[in-house]
Amino acid sequence: METKLNEYIQKNQTYLNQALEDAIEDKDIPEPLKSSMLYSIKAGGKRIRPILMIATIEAFGGDKNVILPAALALEFVHTYSLIHDDLPAMDDDDLRRGMPTNHIEYDEATAILAGDGLLTQSFELITNAEHLTTDQKLFAVKRLSEAAGSRGMVAGQILDMQAENTQVELDELKQIHHLKTGQLLIYAMEIAAYVAGATEEQLDKITACAEELGLLFQIQDDILDIYGDEDKIGKAVGSDEENDKSTYPKLLGIDGAIKEKEEKKARANKLLNEASIDQTMLAELIQYLSNRDQ
Amino acid sequence: METKLNEYIQKNQTYLNQALEDAIEDKDIPEPLKSSMLYSIKAGGKRIRPILMIATIEAFGGDKNVILPAALALEFVHTYSLIHDDLPAMDDDDLRRGMPTNHIEYDEATAILAGDGLLTQSFELITNAEHLTTDQKLFAVKRLSEAAGSRGMVAGQILDMQAENTQVELDELKQIHHLKTGQLLIYAMEIAAYVAGATEEQLDKITACAEELGLLFQIQDDILDIYGDEDKIGKAVGSDEENDKSTYPKLLGIDGAIKEKEEKKARANKLLNEASIDQTMLAELIQYLSNRDQ
Repeated sequence: METKLNEYIQKNQTYLNQALEDAIEDKDIPEPLKSSMLYSIKAGGKRIRPILMIATIEAFGGDKNVILPAALALEFVHTYSLIHDDLPAMDDDDLRRGMPTNHIEYDEATAILAGDGLLTQSFELITNAEHLTTDQKLFAVKRLSEAAGSRGMVAGQILDMQAENTQVELDELKQIHHLKTGQLLIYAMEIAAYVAGATEEQLDKITACAEELGLLFQIQDDILDIYGDEDKIGKAVGSDEENDKSTYPKLLGIDGAIKEKEEKKARANKLLNEASIDQTMLAELIQYLSNRDQ
Repeated sequence: METKLNEYIQKNQTYLNQALEDAIEDKDIPEPLKSSMLYSIKAGGKRIRPILMIATIEAFGGDKNVILPAALALEFVHTYSLIHDDLPAMDDDDLRRGMPTNHIEYDEATAILAGDGLLTQSFELITNAEHLTTDQKLFAVKRLSEAAGSRGMVAGQILDMQAENTQVELDELKQIHHLKTGQLLIYAMEIAAYVAGATEEQLDKITACAEELGLLFQIQDDILDIYGDEDKIGKAVGSDEENDKSTYPKLLGIDGAIKEKEEKKARANKLLNEASIDQTMLAELIQYLSNRDQ
């Protein structure tokens, strides 16, 4: 079972990596902007978000090629957010996944523009999607702009910055992660379900499942920051503790955090079950995200 | 004639300013992100780009309310580009139009996120346009993402930065301005013509006219940096000379630059004439942009 999932992930990573690079390589973008955009796109990690999108459309019996441009757009937006988050004025990180961050490898101005370029191109990618209808493209643009914007991911980022060095309640912490991490995961699963022709009820179940998954993802992130292997996660552990950051283990204790994570996983699986789809690979992905060590 | 144009500009500025503010005020955006986005939107200048869009749809006998969301999106993108351009890592400007730039009034992190938020919301604005068809919305999203992205405005910005402290040829200078300034002006006029139902030939004439207008706009910018009134333009004159920047007056001499500008104006007017529309207000706007003192 584990092997089947690993194969699925690897096969889709190869599929996605090629398409992601092509989406920049093929374009007439001036240097060093092009290299800088490619650098961060190539440095991308596990492609969890687009793989979740692919697994969702396949759970509805759909074809991943149909959804590919919306999946690339999602990874472009995720990558832009990392580039801007790493900037000196933001988290000031020199390393990401063991490699120099964009503004260290290039410079700050180029990194800002690379982020701007990726964000802008994400919408272009959707409008050029060959196998989506006009309505589907427009829905994808609308949902991506909402999920990534100032009431979505960007809102999460500003709230996260404000929460540094202050104690926040559990509800506030959930809201930050719902915006910063959850919104793009919801976009991933919602678009795939919509394009595959999900009913209203199925859409509700899928978005609710994605919401649980976003929080589960973040709880595991917090746990890894304490117990993770630095080589595997590609950054130093203990940074949350050092920055006096509010985390699930801090607010709930480590046992409480693990319990919370298991509850989210159970709820995500229940919702998936209620969506009446072929949930095999999605359920395995949920299990994988819950136990991931990187 | 002059008074009629002034009235037209003022009337539309009032119309646009209210709609621009509403587009942020009405939204549930966390502070200080919301204030920061509003600050730069309110500090906006003459609203030339959206007014050009309105004048174009009206030249085709269309209704400005139809195009309003696409006009707001354009001003959002223009405003985001100014916020990011002013950042310390980019042009490092403390003042814009006589007021502290966004990162001075707030801080760098907030300014980066305010820019990201405005850019992202611009696409959302288009998808929510009440009076546009699905096809028109999608065309607007596609053209805006192309015009603003890494083969459009963002490309112009990186080329402009590279051109600092080096001597560039006239052709390269034109290419930089075509990307950095021209693309958004082309978007303004093209979308309006498209939505108004322009023929292929009219679209070609209108985009060619906008292209001339973009260069004319930039030549006048360069001239103002030498002969402008600091109080009116809201920034110090002579900065191009100080930064050893390649400009039209530097490459062509002041007389040559003025001659080039007049040629662009003549060509823009000729193209407008060939588009067979009611060109009165557009021709006056071209005249205004050519002679503007701020």
